[in-house]
Amino acid sequence: MNSLAEKWLGQLTLDEKISLVAGKDLWSTSAVDRLGIPSLNMNDGPHGVRKEQDGTLLGLSKPATCFPTSSGLASSWDIELMEQIGVTLGQECKQLDVQILLGPGINMKRSPLCGRNFEYYSEDPCLAGEMAAAFIIGVQSRNIGTSLKHFACYNTEFERMTISSEVDERTMREIYLAAFERAVKKAEPWSIMSSYNKINGTYASENRLLLTDILRGEWNFSGFVMSDWLAVNDRVKALQAGLDLEMPGPALSNGHKLKEAWQSGELAVETLDRAVLNVLSVVEKSLGSAGSAPDELDWSFEQAHRLARTAAEESMVLLKNDNRLLPLEPSSLPSIAIIGRNAKYPLIQGGGSSNINPSFLEIPFDEIVKMLDSGTQIIYADGYDEDGAVNQGLLSEAVRAALQAEVVLLFAGSAELEGNDRESMDLPAGHSALLQAVASIHKSCVVVLNNGSAVNMCGWISDASAVLEAWLPGQAGGSALARLLFGEANPSGKLAETFPVKLSDNPSYLNFPGDNGKTVYGEGLFIGYRYYDRKEIEPLFPFGYGLSYTSFDYTDLEVVRKPEEGSLAVSFKVTNTGSRCGKEIVQLYVSDPDCELVRPDRELKGFAKVELSPGETQTVTMQLEKRDFSYYHPAAGGWTADSGDFVLSIGASSRDIRLSMRVHIEFTGKTEITLDANSLLKQWLKTERGLQAVRYLAEHVAEDENLKETILAGKLRGFFLEMPLWRFIKLLSMDGTAERWSDRMMEELFGL
Amino acid sequence: MNSLAEKWLGQLTLDEKISLVAGKDLWSTSAVDRLGIPSLNMNDGPHGVRKEQDGTLLGLSKPATCFPTSSGLASSWDIELMEQIGVTLGQECKQLDVQILLGPGINMKRSPLCGRNFEYYSEDPCLAGEMAAAFIIGVQSRNIGTSLKHFACYNTEFERMTISSEVDERTMREIYLAAFERAVKKAEPWSIMSSYNKINGTYASENRLLLTDILRGEWNFSGFVMSDWLAVNDRVKALQAGLDLEMPGPALSNGHKLKEAWQSGELAVETLDRAVLNVLSVVEKSLGSAGSAPDELDWSFEQAHRLARTAAEESMVLLKNDNRLLPLEPSSLPSIAIIGRNAKYPLIQGGGSSNINPSFLEIPFDEIVKMLDSGTQIIYADGYDEDGAVNQGLLSEAVRAALQAEVVLLFAGSAELEGNDRESMDLPAGHSALLQAVASIHKSCVVVLNNGSAVNMCGWISDASAVLEAWLPGQAGGSALARLLFGEANPSGKLAETFPVKLSDNPSYLNFPGDNGKTVYGEGLFIGYRYYDRKEIEPLFPFGYGLSYTSFDYTDLEVVRKPEEGSLAVSFKVTNTGSRCGKEIVQLYVSDPDCELVRPDRELKGFAKVELSPGETQTVTMQLEKRDFSYYHPAAGGWTADSGDFVLSIGASSRDIRLSMRVHIEFTGKTEITLDANSLLKQWLKTERGLQAVRYLAEHVAEDENLKETILAGKLRGFFLEMPLWRFIKLLSMDGTAERWSDRMMEELFGL
Repeated sequence: MNSLAEKWLGQLTLDEKISLVAGKDLWSTSAVDRLGIPSLNMNDGPHGVRKEQDGTLLGLSKPATCFPTSSGLASSWDIELMEQIGVTLGQECKQLDVQILLGPGINMKRSPLCGRNFEYYSEDPCLAGEMAAAFIIGVQSRNIGTSLKHFACYNTEFERMTISSEVDERTMREIYLAAFERAVKKAEPWSIMSSYNKINGTYASENRLLLTDILRGEWNFSGFVMSDWLAVNDRVKALQAGLDLEMPGPALSNGHKLKEAWQSGELAVETLDRAVLNVLSVVEKSLGSAGSAPDELDWSFEQAHRLARTAAEESMVLLKNDNRLLPLEPSSLPSIAIIGRNAKYPLIQGGGSSNINPSFLEIPFDEIVKMLDSGTQIIYADGYDEDGAVNQGLLSEAVRAALQAEVVLLFAGSAELEGNDRESMDLPAGHSALLQAVASIHKSCVVVLNNGSAVNMCGWISDASAVLEAWLPGQAGGSALARLLFGEANPSGKLAETFPVKLSDNPSYLNFPGDNGKTVYGEGLFIGYRYYDRKEIEPLFPFGYGLSYTSFDYTDLEVVRKPEEGSLAVSFKVTNTGSRCGKEIVQLYVSDPDCELVRPDRELKGFAKVELSPGETQTVTMQLEKRDFSYYHPAAGGWTADSGDFVLSIGASSRDIRLSMRVHIEFTGKTEITLDANSLLKQWLKTERGLQAVRYLAEHVAEDENLKETILAGKLRGFFLEMPLWRFIKLLSMDGTAERWSDRMMEELFGL
Repeated sequence: MNSLAEKWLGQLTLDEKISLVAGKDLWSTSAVDRLGIPSLNMNDGPHGVRKEQDGTLLGLSKPATCFPTSSGLASSWDIELMEQIGVTLGQECKQLDVQILLGPGINMKRSPLCGRNFEYYSEDPCLAGEMAAAFIIGVQSRNIGTSLKHFACYNTEFERMTISSEVDERTMREIYLAAFERAVKKAEPWSIMSSYNKINGTYASENRLLLTDILRGEWNFSGFVMSDWLAVNDRVKALQAGLDLEMPGPALSNGHKLKEAWQSGELAVETLDRAVLNVLSVVEKSLGSAGSAPDELDWSFEQAHRLARTAAEESMVLLKNDNRLLPLEPSSLPSIAIIGRNAKYPLIQGGGSSNINPSFLEIPFDEIVKMLDSGTQIIYADGYDEDGAVNQGLLSEAVRAALQAEVVLLFAGSAELEGNDRESMDLPAGHSALLQAVASIHKSCVVVLNNGSAVNMCGWISDASAVLEAWLPGQAGGSALARLLFGEANPSGKLAETFPVKLSDNPSYLNFPGDNGKTVYGEGLFIGYRYYDRKEIEPLFPFGYGLSYTSFDYTDLEVVRKPEEGSLAVSFKVTNTGSRCGKEIVQLYVSDPDCELVRPDRELKGFAKVELSPGETQTVTMQLEKRDFSYYHPAAGGWTADSGDFVLSIGASSRDIRLSMRVHIEFTGKTEITLDANSLLKQWLKTERGLQAVRYLAEHVAEDENLKETILAGKLRGFFLEMPLWRFIKLLSMDGTAERWSDRMMEELFGL
């Protein structure tokens, strides 16, 4: 029996079909009224719903809940929380008449400078993929669609609509596509958004390898592929490559081009029909929920705001806490200085298409003041002005303010902006100057940072007693921050990206953002912690790092289900050894020391967030599948795992491995390489046949006595071992007048 | 009038032609007796003449002068010395009946691990190219040919006959081909040897881009191209690509393949004839000198040995000399311990095809003893055994020996081997253990190192008082070393390669040697000091570094010839401010801070070695041409220089810049980029036409009032600036029903 979408398709005219593969306008799909095909509203995304009030590109949007941006959400490492946020976003979409939420964005954080880092999760595809899957599952549980973006290898805003990401296939598969693969397979997003850039010279929107071969052929994606806004270069090529829907619409001249291509036969009927059907299938899926109010009784902006607070609390990362300065105790705090304009004008999100008009807005200063005892003296200073430049007057005032207080809270940081890569990792000059000036003269400074990616802390990090990375924490960030500072909540976030000491330590530094129309991924697989580990560079704060007001012990790592077909389970115990309730993010890394190809030292393959009362112990069990041990082999054109020893490490961070064990795993299905005349002598000598044959050649063919003896003594060195077989034989048999080896000999000896 | 070679060509049969494009045997070209075409003997190379006694591949060769290997020679930075060595090698070639010396080898030192680093000069193409040119000019002044090798991008021994060097065009041009280009243009070598590896998937021996388009088309090379030994993969393709001569010979089956291809018409007559003519032209050139004795009265093995000593003295680099422990004063030396087997069994060169059977051999121990006063007590200990493993007994004996002596000389190091990349930068374990054990308990240790590339010094470098990098110093290294240690000569070598603190600091570390058949040049242009500078990594000893027993001051940098067509001259003064005669290597680096494309912080563009008596001052003048300011622009397909400011820096090393100045240079001939509809808005807005046109569009076409105002206020940000023009206009004009811009408007406004 045909689906409704298929029935619709059968009744459409050519013009209607062409209209359906482009938007109706800036923010919706085309309708066909005579058939009752409705239009779907599609809006940004991702950390809230941005429903334009007037339908313009970047105008004022309707109030909606502003959650922490993705940098923060990922730092929660909390899958259940992400799903809950997804559910709430789905409900708000219904409230705001949105059928597809444009998110999540899961591009890898290759450089701290990327202007959209605040919209992305991590430098690690496992973490990013898991968070994205939870988000999608949550939203789509409300029958609201998502659009997983930006597909793919879109990691800079520099010349973003034309730049080509030059990346080898293995790196693309293992790093830049891996989070997409995980999310698509696990959560089946209704749509995927192709990115602006080119990949190895081909626009993402025209990239058949990505949009069709991999996405549909390998991952079984069944939704539709839309373009990012204005990302279509050649509409005909794009449609042929697998880009179903052009956004924004209407199609206009691109519609004419499609029609011409259809008429000339350049565009196959099936190609257009397939795209239309992909779009209509999602339209059909959304029927019934389109235009309806939230279907849960328990949704309200107030409730969503409380969830945003929980999200902010779980997201913030305590980076430093010397002498346990935090949490602050209101009853023993005679005075406090709150310094930094950000405390009163909060940075809750970044700029660009994701910018939400918050339904409520908390002011950190007010929320902190609420926490204080009435007797505590409160001193405030701006510290810097709106533009962030150094202001000597405000600086002096800030220093004076600090000197009057027992404890100083210093607010600094700036929000990133879509379309603009940062030029450095530095905070605004006025902010850095403030932190340096105050931290160097006051022993109890707590720095609160707002930003969407790593920042430079040289100049003040050694002087500050405590640092809380608050990210861009959304509309309820103020109270979340206050609760963490005063111990009503316990910090439990961990970094989803490495914070390097300096920008030049970053793996992409030499090639970022690129030039001559290209951005070269020269670091290959070695993004983020994979690079710092291999290059033995000490980061300022490593991937997976974050402090708590309590402490945790790890014990009893064991394999609880034996390796079978590469799948196994390990368990270990985590104990809260401190005196406060807290949550610990535990991380499982896999190392493959004997791999045929180069692999990173260790890679994240599992994680969990565990809540423990003081003294409580929990057993954590984690599953690993064959894929978790696999790498992409470009020569084999697929994923493979080498039988052998692997090291499983349980870490409190990527650099704080608490438990580890070596396990031996046998994998089946490994493709054996067939040796030929161009295979290297060292490869042949690993086989019995090769050993025998080379011995025979030494005895019967070799002209050079020295070489003959070396072979028979088994003492060949690299000079010979690195030769292709046939060139070695040629050398061996050289006598100046004839070749003493024959095709027959090759066949008999080597089977060639 | 036709050349003799052309006349020969006209008389050759097909079989004779085919015979002539392969060797006669392992070490010579084919002869055609009936026409009187002689055979040329071609032998390794490069730091001496390796004339096989029995004509086998790697058998015993006739005695010849063994100079320091190229690592050492390059560290002399002495062009005149190199030329003199070339002259002497040319004379020995005559003595040994060799017509073409297989060298110099000028591949870049990309990783310290490359097994043939000892045969190469530097990580910098200017230094390597200059040294190679001098060598070639010297040899060829005796009417002996050279073979510049290995062409190209051959930087690892790992799977060397099949591996593909994956390198982008700009990097290839500016780094990996640049030394070849310099040497070819400056010194016109009689032949070039293609390398074993592939470049971007195509064998060097079949690489038309390299062997024909660049080498002959751009550089006007007029000699012949030979294969490295057994480097030919497909003989027909190779000949078509420009590989004239296959080595070794005879052609045998490859000859048959050529004949078949010729008969089938696949191989054009002209292609074969061109190759034959290239070979015969060199044969013609060598007529008269072939088989003749040295034509100078002043050549003898004894004289050559003295030159080898001078070369070794100029090559060694004093890396450390705390408290001026060196030079040692024989008269005030009650006792000396000489420790390390290398002192008695000297490492004078590396292994493989370059290995020379030395005409004389000095033993460092003996040469040092000759320097001592008769009253000085001499203590000797082996320290480690032949295989270099840790030997506790020998270690203990060494420590006891050291404790009895006033000063300790410690010998360590190992020789590299063709065909075998090193696995780490470590010295043999027994050598490291010796240095650690002795240096940690004796305050006056002098370490003498023998190696062909950077080694790991962690573990003992802070304890050793003095370190002399002696390289693989050839047959007269013993006396050269003794003269330097005791002040009869003053160290004047400087490093031609960076010594990193640890291997993981090296730019190629992540990608070296590669896997899956590829070695990826992910660091791009940033090889050697270019990388350490940009990445802000402190090397152990930087490129261009070396100490002296005296000191030098730099003053008075000025432009002595005004920039004209990009050519200029600078001069500065160098003064010997110490009390010994000495030589200083002065280095000129150019920086291009405002380049359109990314460039290294500074690049070596000139150098000189200046000899100065105590108190003496000399003025050094250096020339810079347009090419010295240029970079290769892949989009333009050629070299270009941007008008603007450049910084000229005069350094005692790459990290010890003594003088610098900013100069403004205007270059003509820069190709202006023509803007089109796909050019970015930011590019258009740099033109008056673009500014006016976008203003007009804002006023007459823009639909969105916010955007219109932003444009008119000149406040567009990256979000819009990074858009291609036509996509920006599309966005600007979007009203949901029609496109308000037209082709006519584009033509009138933008000229498109």
